Amino acid sequence: MPTAIAKRRRRGRRTGAAEVDAPAFLTRRIPPYALLDEASLDRIERHADWILAEIGVEIRDDPVALELFREAGATIDGERLRFDRGHLRELCRTAPKTYRMHARNPARSIEIGGENLVFGAAYGSPFVFDIEQGRRYGTLEDLQNFIKLTYLSPWLHHQSGTVCEPVDIAVNKRHLDMVYAHLRYSDKPFMGSVTAPERAEDSIAMARIVFGEAFMRDHLVIQGNINVNSPLVYDQTMTASLRSYAAANQGVVLSPFIMGGAMSPVTQPAIIAQAHAELLVGIALTQLVRAGAPVVYGSFLTTMDLKSGAPTFGTPESTLATCAIAQLGRRLGLPVRCGGHLTASKVADAQAMQESTNAMLAGVLAGANFIFQAAGWLESGLSIGYEKFVIDAEQCGALARLVAGLDIDDEQLAGEAYREAGVGSNFLGVAHTLRHYRGANYDAGLCDASPYEQWSEGGSEDMQQRAHRRWRQLLADYEAPPIDPAIDEALLDFIARRKASMPDQWY
Amino acid sequence: MPTAIAKRRRRGRRTGAAEVDAPAFLTRRIPPYALLDEASLDRIERHADWILAEIGVEIRDDPVALELFREAGATIDGERLRFDRGHLRELCRTAPKTYRMHARNPARSIEIGGENLVFGAAYGSPFVFDIEQGRRYGTLEDLQNFIKLTYLSPWLHHQSGTVCEPVDIAVNKRHLDMVYAHLRYSDKPFMGSVTAPERAEDSIAMARIVFGEAFMRDHLVIQGNINVNSPLVYDQTMTASLRSYAAANQGVVLSPFIMGGAMSPVTQPAIIAQAHAELLVGIALTQLVRAGAPVVYGSFLTTMDLKSGAPTFGTPESTLATCAIAQLGRRLGLPVRCGGHLTASKVADAQAMQESTNAMLAGVLAGANFIFQAAGWLESGLSIGYEKFVIDAEQCGALARLVAGLDIDDEQLAGEAYREAGVGSNFLGVAHTLRHYRGANYDAGLCDASPYEQWSEGGSEDMQQRAHRRWRQLLADYEAPPIDPAIDEALLDFIARRKASMPDQWY
Repeated sequence: MPTAIAKRRRRGRRTGAAEVDAPAFLTRRIPPYALLDEASLDRIERHADWILAEIGVEIRDDPVALELFREAGATIDGERLRFDRGHLRELCRTAPKTYRMHARNPARSIEIGGENLVFGAAYGSPFVFDIEQGRRYGTLEDLQNFIKLTYLSPWLHHQSGTVCEPVDIAVNKRHLDMVYAHLRYSDKPFMGSVTAPERAEDSIAMARIVFGEAFMRDHLVIQGNINVNSPLVYDQTMTASLRSYAAANQGVVLSPFIMGGAMSPVTQPAIIAQAHAELLVGIALTQLVRAGAPVVYGSFLTTMDLKSGAPTFGTPESTLATCAIAQLGRRLGLPVRCGGHLTASKVADAQAMQESTNAMLAGVLAGANFIFQAAGWLESGLSIGYEKFVIDAEQCGALARLVAGLDIDDEQLAGEAYREAGVGSNFLGVAHTLRHYRGANYDAGLCDASPYEQWSEGGSEDMQQRAHRRWRQLLADYEAPPIDPAIDEALLDFIARRKASMPDQWY
Repeated sequence: MPTAIAKRRRRGRRTGAAEVDAPAFLTRRIPPYALLDEASLDRIERHADWILAEIGVEIRDDPVALELFREAGATIDGERLRFDRGHLRELCRTAPKTYRMHARNPARSIEIGGENLVFGAAYGSPFVFDIEQGRRYGTLEDLQNFIKLTYLSPWLHHQSGTVCEPVDIAVNKRHLDMVYAHLRYSDKPFMGSVTAPERAEDSIAMARIVFGEAFMRDHLVIQGNINVNSPLVYDQTMTASLRSYAAANQGVVLSPFIMGGAMSPVTQPAIIAQAHAELLVGIALTQLVRAGAPVVYGSFLTTMDLKSGAPTFGTPESTLATCAIAQLGRRLGLPVRCGGHLTASKVADAQAMQESTNAMLAGVLAGANFIFQAAGWLESGLSIGYEKFVIDAEQCGALARLVAGLDIDDEQLAGEAYREAGVGSNFLGVAHTLRHYRGANYDAGLCDASPYEQWSEGGSEDMQQRAHRRWRQLLADYEAPPIDPAIDEALLDFIARRKASMPDQWY
């Protein structure tokens, strides 16, 4: 195994994955941005408590979950649950503050929570886009391509899960091909299926083939991404999948997806309080299923165009909400997910990067620990773009430099350089510059800083066109990480048996 | 006069300038981002003191400035000045913390410093760009166009100065046409010339024709933008212009423009300390000329591609430097300038807005009080783009919403909306949403959030193409603000006399 890893890393070096000496995850050395003061955060928490006590939350079609909450002391009226002030916060106390998520390649295992930060690919789009072929439905090949691109990026630490929907595969079987693609074409951490409890179980079963059942009893290797049916509803598909992952001591990422004005009131403070209330319910449920189950306090709070009803991203209102919800998550002491390279734009144009940069920087400065949707998002998540993907991934590298912060010490203050250069002459040739110039600045290869004449003689390409060449080259040079042939065979055998056991379903 | 203002405001409403009920300047209601702790800031300040005491700064070809510093107790060796620890900080103490800058239209006067924030247009590019005509040298017509677009934007509070170079006018005369354009085509605050002391004096003289000599003795109406010849040099062009503005009790915006590795060591802490040292010298000089003269602690710190020597923008290193220098400026208690919609891109593409959004958000979150270069920048400042201008200006509106922050109160928390909507149904029709939906979200008209089909049937336009239509429409609908015909005549007469007094010079 160590030999295989070493081999993969050497190969990675050739194919670009490890061309940059990048860590498996980041450690934040800059403080989070404190938007709200303590009194304001108290006020929001009290309002969340009021929502939970007075309005309540519904868990639909899941008597098992209801029973867990009944035993824990919730007030239950049909499917409506109400909670005394502070009760849920008490139930959340057993959730771990930080934990390790194991990758197939141990060198790519990550730490979630605390001062750590992890970037992952986009999740969930039915369509894919590139400037040559345009927009079309995603296929298994597209999914595999994006997994390969994620594997190749030194700045993406996590593969995400349903990077795009492989709509050429039957709905009830595609999770098998998706989990296989994650395990075969990359070796970084990933997410399994949540679209039905049995698909969650299949995902976990496939992970067991690779990692071993005993290992997974007390090691996290797979996560499920659970959305809330806001406002204030959990449906059975999600709570049952949540229970599957938590029962197996695997990870749950909980995220209310709230567009203010539709799934919540239109004002940001209400959106934040509601998301917090919804999260407390889901986190408590993971802990009732299995105390100590790893969970992420996630959120996906955004705005909408109130004239058309279309979701909007990277807006100032969503930046404010992102900063505030991260503060509430940190107060609870849990790993926080927020932010992402999000946009409503259909192509990787000025709008795409204005919105994406706003949304992503908000998450990073807010102190997020886990940011998936960090590469590829287009068209409000309906599409994932190849060009957008490599542009976003490169920016993740810039953000890795940002969170490393500044070292204010003698070497960085460079007193010696002033003694050498004196006044009025440049520093290009001084010893300090020569010693530092390689590592001083992050090198964003897709950004063109060349003179106008050189750029126009080269064809006046915009960033999207440069990105097109980049992703095609990356895929052309891709080499898969090694896998034990016996494990590969066992995975394929499992998939074949599961596929044979049921007819195709397309809904 | 009040009638004229009222008339202009009514007209403005028709032409777009005041379509949005926007204030003349912003008041920050979010805290600045505190990147560095106090010990780190102390360490940088000590290093700046060391540079000033041991290495020193040169003021070249300006014996008047040298004499002022000699009288103040600096150690002078030829043109090299050295300062005891803390001496310059003491000399800076008379600089005002906040002050008012008066616009031709009193309703557009601004407050500089404290919790206030002002956005202004780009400054200084020889070239202009739009997607129809491409890149070409700027002309007086272009300058007038950008002044008109600044006037029309509710989110730009300050016109900046040399928005682009009108290269069709002789070098020694173009400042006259520039100042006239600012006074005639807009009524917001603006900057005068600094390219020679006599041009600074002409700029101030033209302001006196409009505002009156008596008024200007104790009211700020015009500023000069003074760059430092980093590393550690002030040349006579700049110090003499600085003295002209300060002596007239008018404003000086001081900004070291430092590309790390060339005009400073390559490491950010050194860049920050050097900029601080350079600023202390310039600010002290304004106060030696006239105690209490209004001044801005500015900076323009960025990175370069160390392989090609090209400047780069919106980089993580420059974001860190921006945050740190703003903290040092606040410590000194002075109005801070940093940030801007900056990019090396030649067009308004993904790169342009990725870089611009990073650079701008850094300045806004860092707590800047004055951000010019906030609209139009392209190509590392060599070019100003028409499309880029309107995209950036619209984003300034989003940032105005951002700095307004959140109100955590009962109305915003919307308890009543939950009582009305209950659980699991949408909030579109509840009374709270109807009451708030108009003002809840900033409306960014250039961002397209429509469904893919609608967008592609509309021609699949990217943001740059939409922006092209926007600026052309704005200019087509433009109406000039009114001006007293006698004042206009006096200005034109002054310009004619000055132009007649000297032959054209083209260098």
